[in-house]
Amino acid sequence: MKDIEIRELFRNREEYAGKEIVVRGWVRGNRASNQFGFISLNDGTFFTPLQVVYEASKIDNYEEISKVHLAAGVMVKGVLELTPGAQQPFELKATEVTVEADSLSDYPLQKKRHTMEYLREIAHLRPRSNTFSAVFRVRSIVAYAIHKFFQERDYVYVHAPIITGSDAEGAGEMFRVTTLDLSNPPTNEDGSIDYSQDFFGKETNLTVSGQLEGEAMALAFRNIYTFGPTFRAENSNTARHASEFWMIEPEIAFADLADDMDVAEDMVKYIISYTLEHAPEEMEFFNKFVDKGLLDRLHHIVNSDFERVTYTEAVEILKKADKDFQFPVEWGIDLQTEHERYLTEEVFKKPIFVIDYPKEIKAFYMRLNDDGKTVAACDLLVPGVGEIIGGSQREERLDILEARMDEIGMNRELYDWYVDLRRYGGVKHAGYGLGFERMIMYLTGMSNIRDVVPFPRTPKNAEF
Amino acid sequence: MKDIEIRELFRNREEYAGKEIVVRGWVRGNRASNQFGFISLNDGTFFTPLQVVYEASKIDNYEEISKVHLAAGVMVKGVLELTPGAQQPFELKATEVTVEADSLSDYPLQKKRHTMEYLREIAHLRPRSNTFSAVFRVRSIVAYAIHKFFQERDYVYVHAPIITGSDAEGAGEMFRVTTLDLSNPPTNEDGSIDYSQDFFGKETNLTVSGQLEGEAMALAFRNIYTFGPTFRAENSNTARHASEFWMIEPEIAFADLADDMDVAEDMVKYIISYTLEHAPEEMEFFNKFVDKGLLDRLHHIVNSDFERVTYTEAVEILKKADKDFQFPVEWGIDLQTEHERYLTEEVFKKPIFVIDYPKEIKAFYMRLNDDGKTVAACDLLVPGVGEIIGGSQREERLDILEARMDEIGMNRELYDWYVDLRRYGGVKHAGYGLGFERMIMYLTGMSNIRDVVPFPRTPKNAEF
Repeated sequence: MKDIEIRELFRNREEYAGKEIVVRGWVRGNRASNQFGFISLNDGTFFTPLQVVYEASKIDNYEEISKVHLAAGVMVKGVLELTPGAQQPFELKATEVTVEADSLSDYPLQKKRHTMEYLREIAHLRPRSNTFSAVFRVRSIVAYAIHKFFQERDYVYVHAPIITGSDAEGAGEMFRVTTLDLSNPPTNEDGSIDYSQDFFGKETNLTVSGQLEGEAMALAFRNIYTFGPTFRAENSNTARHASEFWMIEPEIAFADLADDMDVAEDMVKYIISYTLEHAPEEMEFFNKFVDKGLLDRLHHIVNSDFERVTYTEAVEILKKADKDFQFPVEWGIDLQTEHERYLTEEVFKKPIFVIDYPKEIKAFYMRLNDDGKTVAACDLLVPGVGEIIGGSQREERLDILEARMDEIGMNRELYDWYVDLRRYGGVKHAGYGLGFERMIMYLTGMSNIRDVVPFPRTPKNAEF
Repeated sequence: MKDIEIRELFRNREEYAGKEIVVRGWVRGNRASNQFGFISLNDGTFFTPLQVVYEASKIDNYEEISKVHLAAGVMVKGVLELTPGAQQPFELKATEVTVEADSLSDYPLQKKRHTMEYLREIAHLRPRSNTFSAVFRVRSIVAYAIHKFFQERDYVYVHAPIITGSDAEGAGEMFRVTTLDLSNPPTNEDGSIDYSQDFFGKETNLTVSGQLEGEAMALAFRNIYTFGPTFRAENSNTARHASEFWMIEPEIAFADLADDMDVAEDMVKYIISYTLEHAPEEMEFFNKFVDKGLLDRLHHIVNSDFERVTYTEAVEILKKADKDFQFPVEWGIDLQTEHERYLTEEVFKKPIFVIDYPKEIKAFYMRLNDDGKTVAACDLLVPGVGEIIGGSQREERLDILEARMDEIGMNRELYDWYVDLRRYGGVKHAGYGLGFERMIMYLTGMSNIRDVVPFPRTPKNAEF
């Protein structure tokens, strides 16, 4: 008899009511008296466990089952009985229970509250807890929502390279990728390392962004997006930084900054709506146990028109604010999280795009505005978190781009292919980057990035 | 006036017939007489270009447009006229043509046949050619088909870690990831490198497979899949090996090898059907210009029941074969491509799973069969390519797994978390790996892996 997934029982209960079925799953709870017992059974396909009732008079291994350990894998045959009015909508009256894989009694995930720190140490088992089961299912659903959003709009999904020979000007510290023997690396005559003998014949690193390659693809396909891992070798031990994280980077051609923000706004709303619809049990759980205002906040965002305000206006608002900021505000500074949250939470009370930042604090590829001192950049700030998206219109004018690269001393030769894109039909284009983990934190209310990645990588930590 | 994507024109032509519209795109071809000219316009959203007709009597910059370079980005306003019976189904009669971004005359992608080798050198421009436009759109569609297949079946998408501290027993050579100064690395007293000072406090590498982490997730969620980049630091300069490639690794719990093969077979058929349906123009192109039997072969696969044959039977067949193999066949050898192709192409004439391989030639985690000498592994062989999927039921028995790890001298401490999965509810489970690029090669008929990756990484090559 083929087993039925517990998700299917919850979604189509009427179909199985009164019928004999087989389920398989893991024991999340087990308590028994002399005559009957209850197993809380979870097979991983659904957030809520199935209640199994077994009776001494009905199964011949009652003694064994009443002592079965947490986490054991069992098969249960029985009849599904609807229980209207009870806490759970139905229960399975067992006629047969078989242990398929027992569990040792020292199971590290006993039924009690554990600290998040402890759970990180058992990252291979924590997805079996309520919180992490909910987090990682939502992570999966959000990833799919992102693909669905772009594919339905005929964007081409691009795998940007992970190993790169470029030095990613300004985007952050990089990890080196090498096959050289560190104890005895080949050297040049001047004593420097001879990277021509390395695997790729030159210095290579892990990518910090797929944007530049994305631009090449957008100037062929018009609309593209990347979705892949990116890396930062920064020694930041904060709740919001990981050394390895996933990014989504759409790039659109024949488009300016306003078009770019339209796509970003639509995407954020789409992701939220899709997740609320496809993970209702998990989102309810987060709202109840992780972040009490979560659902209200998300619904509010879906129903808001995102505001657009220039950096210069934002600085004026902050300077006039009756608020003691830790970092003083002056035109030209990089906005800090305290400023961003004040703007989005207290002033506008909804998501805002801040646009047209001073060119000095933004990347070389952002398009210079007519004022000569700001660039067509946009950061999306949302209540409760701050920045989740950073984007820009790209500098498509060959002479201005080259001048800017020289100004900050970039190696033009290394980027000649990128400059080529401006030589041959380099129409206006724009794009943005969304940090996937930031989005998951935002959607779940989880406050530490280590708790939204299955096996997180942070300074001094690459376990599992 | 908002521009309309060329894909939309081709898909819903009736809606636009006789209407004035605006399109934007790049010039793929331009020829003009004294009185009228034709631009072949491609905006990247559709394989087939739009034919634009412009006349000296209708636009005031006829002279300029007639000389516009290949690859220039232009805006065209005009009326769409259906042309039944003509080569193209419609054309756009221009009333206005504006150059939005010109192109230099030395455009490296002139309208002529280029060698694949040359095109690899201009990987930033080659997606603008017919072949690579088709390849990379199909790549995107296949990626989505894979997500859709698993998500519709409620599999949880898992991002396995890219940077790993494990040594991936047996799966191949790895790239080191480090932030140590190679010119002057810290050393221990005995002169060896002191990796405790490296970024993660120990030696780390790029992953060769997400399977072990996938197993942890499957034993929480029942059904999961990974889809991410994996790496091999092997100095293989073949048409089928890349240093960086993407893999899909589903893992299913409460499942054995037969279940595993069922999923693999369904997935392969789903991917093919989805691609044929969603990229008909591209698939037609491949069938015509890249691989003449392609469509027949793919349709045949969708309609076949995949055969299942044991390794032992396969060896018997090969030994009896009236065929001169380069590598002689004996029970215990690893099957070579020549053997695999003979079996799938000449004997069975359809896809076959070869199962139950000698344990010595397979990985430590594969489940030992009752005969004590083979393991529950499966390789899927397909006509025209050979192996595209490798999978197995995993060894879920604690004692047998530990004995096997000791037998081949593995570091048990490093894998203690993996062994834990057998201590706490380690039910039977199985999984497989699909090389994404191999699948794309199979679907497009492209014969070199460098030509199905946007920016390929191979020994001595990490350009762009």
